Amino acid sequence: MAQKPSIPKGTRDFSPAEVAKRNYIIETIRHQFEVFGFQPIETPSFENLETLMGKYGDEGDRLIFKILNSGDYLNKVEPEVYAQKDSAGLTPQISEKALRYDLTVPFARYVVMHQHEIDLPFKRYQIQPVWRADRPQKGRFREFYQCDADVVGPGSLLQEVELLQLYDSVFSDLGLNGVCIKLNHRKILSGIAEVIGAGDKLIPFTVALDKLDKIGQEGVMREMSAAGIGQAAIEKAMPLFSMAKDKQNSLDVLSEFLKDSIVGKQGIEDLKFIAETIRTLELNSTSLEIDVSLARGLNYYTGAIFEVSAPEGVNMGSIGGGGRYDDLTGIFGLKDLSGVGISFGLDRIYLVLEELGLFPETVEESVQVLFVNFGEKEALAALPLIRKMRGEGIKTDLYPADAKLQKQFKYANNRNIPYVVLLGKDELEQKVIVVKDMANGSQNTYAWKDLQQFISTL
Amino acid sequence: MAQKPSIPKGTRDFSPAEVAKRNYIIETIRHQFEVFGFQPIETPSFENLETLMGKYGDEGDRLIFKILNSGDYLNKVEPEVYAQKDSAGLTPQISEKALRYDLTVPFARYVVMHQHEIDLPFKRYQIQPVWRADRPQKGRFREFYQCDADVVGPGSLLQEVELLQLYDSVFSDLGLNGVCIKLNHRKILSGIAEVIGAGDKLIPFTVALDKLDKIGQEGVMREMSAAGIGQAAIEKAMPLFSMAKDKQNSLDVLSEFLKDSIVGKQGIEDLKFIAETIRTLELNSTSLEIDVSLARGLNYYTGAIFEVSAPEGVNMGSIGGGGRYDDLTGIFGLKDLSGVGISFGLDRIYLVLEELGLFPETVEESVQVLFVNFGEKEALAALPLIRKMRGEGIKTDLYPADAKLQKQFKYANNRNIPYVVLLGKDELEQKVIVVKDMANGSQNTYAWKDLQQFISTL
Repeated sequence: MAQKPSIPKGTRDFSPAEVAKRNYIIETIRHQFEVFGFQPIETPSFENLETLMGKYGDEGDRLIFKILNSGDYLNKVEPEVYAQKDSAGLTPQISEKALRYDLTVPFARYVVMHQHEIDLPFKRYQIQPVWRADRPQKGRFREFYQCDADVVGPGSLLQEVELLQLYDSVFSDLGLNGVCIKLNHRKILSGIAEVIGAGDKLIPFTVALDKLDKIGQEGVMREMSAAGIGQAAIEKAMPLFSMAKDKQNSLDVLSEFLKDSIVGKQGIEDLKFIAETIRTLELNSTSLEIDVSLARGLNYYTGAIFEVSAPEGVNMGSIGGGGRYDDLTGIFGLKDLSGVGISFGLDRIYLVLEELGLFPETVEESVQVLFVNFGEKEALAALPLIRKMRGEGIKTDLYPADAKLQKQFKYANNRNIPYVVLLGKDELEQKVIVVKDMANGSQNTYAWKDLQQFISTL
Repeated sequence: MAQKPSIPKGTRDFSPAEVAKRNYIIETIRHQFEVFGFQPIETPSFENLETLMGKYGDEGDRLIFKILNSGDYLNKVEPEVYAQKDSAGLTPQISEKALRYDLTVPFARYVVMHQHEIDLPFKRYQIQPVWRADRPQKGRFREFYQCDADVVGPGSLLQEVELLQLYDSVFSDLGLNGVCIKLNHRKILSGIAEVIGAGDKLIPFTVALDKLDKIGQEGVMREMSAAGIGQAAIEKAMPLFSMAKDKQNSLDVLSEFLKDSIVGKQGIEDLKFIAETIRTLELNSTSLEIDVSLARGLNYYTGAIFEVSAPEGVNMGSIGGGGRYDDLTGIFGLKDLSGVGISFGLDRIYLVLEELGLFPETVEESVQVLFVNFGEKEALAALPLIRKMRGEGIKTDLYPADAKLQKQFKYANNRNIPYVVLLGKDELEQKVIVVKDMANGSQNTYAWKDLQQFISTL
């Protein structure tokens, strides 16, 4: 009995047109990664279970896809454990491997394992799929690509500057104007919490502030209050709310606000340097904006924080993000190695380009020239011409069967093939080809020996 | 306590140099796939377990990596099944998904699921990793890439011709001369078994014949005898053994040998057409050879069979293979769809190119120009120049920290960077850069405003 096939929920097949568009984005990102001096690495799709477990919090541990051991895997399970019939208890006894959950932990593992082959600072990029057993929903998949660039080793604020330029170069190459990079600093958030007297409430404070766009000033104040932040502290924080509206002078307002916080002033100085240097160098397609409500993985980042928003009018969450972190590799025994990195959200960038019609027209053009198949004799005569065109790198095809002309033209249309070549009985006798331009219907005749003339028009 | 990290056996980390070389091969293959009119698809890394099980024989079923269900997966296990503590019985109750084992079954599933979006004949290529729980050994990994091109739909021998040209184009682009494509035909093997009176012993007959290179004529005869093939039949097959040595006239010898077998003569005619057409079109770097001992997945292929050997003197198994098959999609309910396809063995091609020193020197050159970092002031002056060079697509980097000159030069050497730019205190004053050619040690000075002059030398 034949199976009616399906694919696992949260996964996707990609059609030729989709692969072409995804590769267009990936190759654009890869090109700029390399132009900026980043080097690619690749890590295995699955890691040892203990490499991944405990690195992403309890929810992460649950969302990691575990791989069942091969062979008679129950043989090694302790009878007491088996008797309990407890999933969480049994898992480590029947599964030793798990699918990659992100690119950061495997990168940390890579750096530690290969520390003697790597020259620090190490600028690496990695473009590979990751897997999460998340509930699938619109725009959230169980298999998706991450595109990360990080520098680890001796730090310098010039690395932050360079990563912002890298964002700008990629979005410029993609023709995506109006992207906004929001910038904040972990030390500014600490400074604020310190100044208002809520230093012990840093996390609930920033979590609440982060919602300013969604729930407004009143909502944020209510949430802070509910989190146990005192009324006096909340009132002290008031200038931040209005600052979030007037983003032009953010750094001046903040400098004044944080003038008594040492840590806060360090954050301000970093952002000033970054913003000043970027202003001198100029960005092409993107703009930079200080956003004091940006929190982003607070227990991970330790310095500057970035988040990239799609152009105004496009309803999409962030399309990228990153920041500076300390101690990437400490979990694997290599201390004091800090870094800074950014990530591109491939799936969301795809949706934005699609919505704005920014994919180049030629991206889906898989074949440039199709030779109609008039039967074996004509097809055999076409082969040397096709060979020559392919030899010049022109994507050329012979319709692979001797089908009705109408069917072959329909195929050419469906595949957006710009030129169709006719080599039938008459053309065979005269040793010519007739080239039909599918866009305007015009026809040109070329002698076989003048094929190069046709090639040069492409 | 920090973990000492490791990776699962049979998997690999790829360093920047390795990724660069692998991508060089993959992009060469991809380019020719597209020039020949093949379109890319991608399928999910994991499929539903029932999509894969039963498609690769019993051994295949064992070697498929299964993914443990998420959450409280034991909750759904029937108590009677659990009580038996039998791995094989428990697996389907705790695992619904499995990692891709090859690209052919997912392709068949894709064609059936998307049959109404696809124009037949459908020329697809797919370059993705697959996973097998095989015992790891030299050159055999648990995660490796497959690079497949197939045409499904109405068949034509011109497709075989085209696939042979495709092999030739890829190996030519890789600079790998002397590759031999061995050619056989399932119908020729059937004809031989018929003619010698061993039609019911086709599989053991070809399995034994396949070993001619390794165990010699005597060994093959012994093995055939052990498989129950009669002495008379074996003696009738004698001409094949000598034919295997004299490969020039294989088709003539075979024609004579198979003159009374209808099926055998069909096979001969197909190979004659393919060989003749290829002779007219000419191959660049590869040669074609009829090899009657080539068996290759006999219960799968139904027409022409290909296998690609590395150039003589390189000790390596086949670096590619393929053939024509019927009924690719029947298992998923779409009958009578035949096809023909080839595959490239990425890992082995890598080893061959490495052994013969055929990777281009520039393949590992990740950065073309490195600016030495003399401190913040000089680095800031370098940034606009670096920005301009990157804007022209030149892979340019600033050493990311203000380290000792010797260390920065060592880094440039280790990374094979051909040009190092000096912009220190003096150069800053004079608004110039000094470019050092790392190959010959020569130095050139350019004014900042003449940066384009330097760029044009690259």
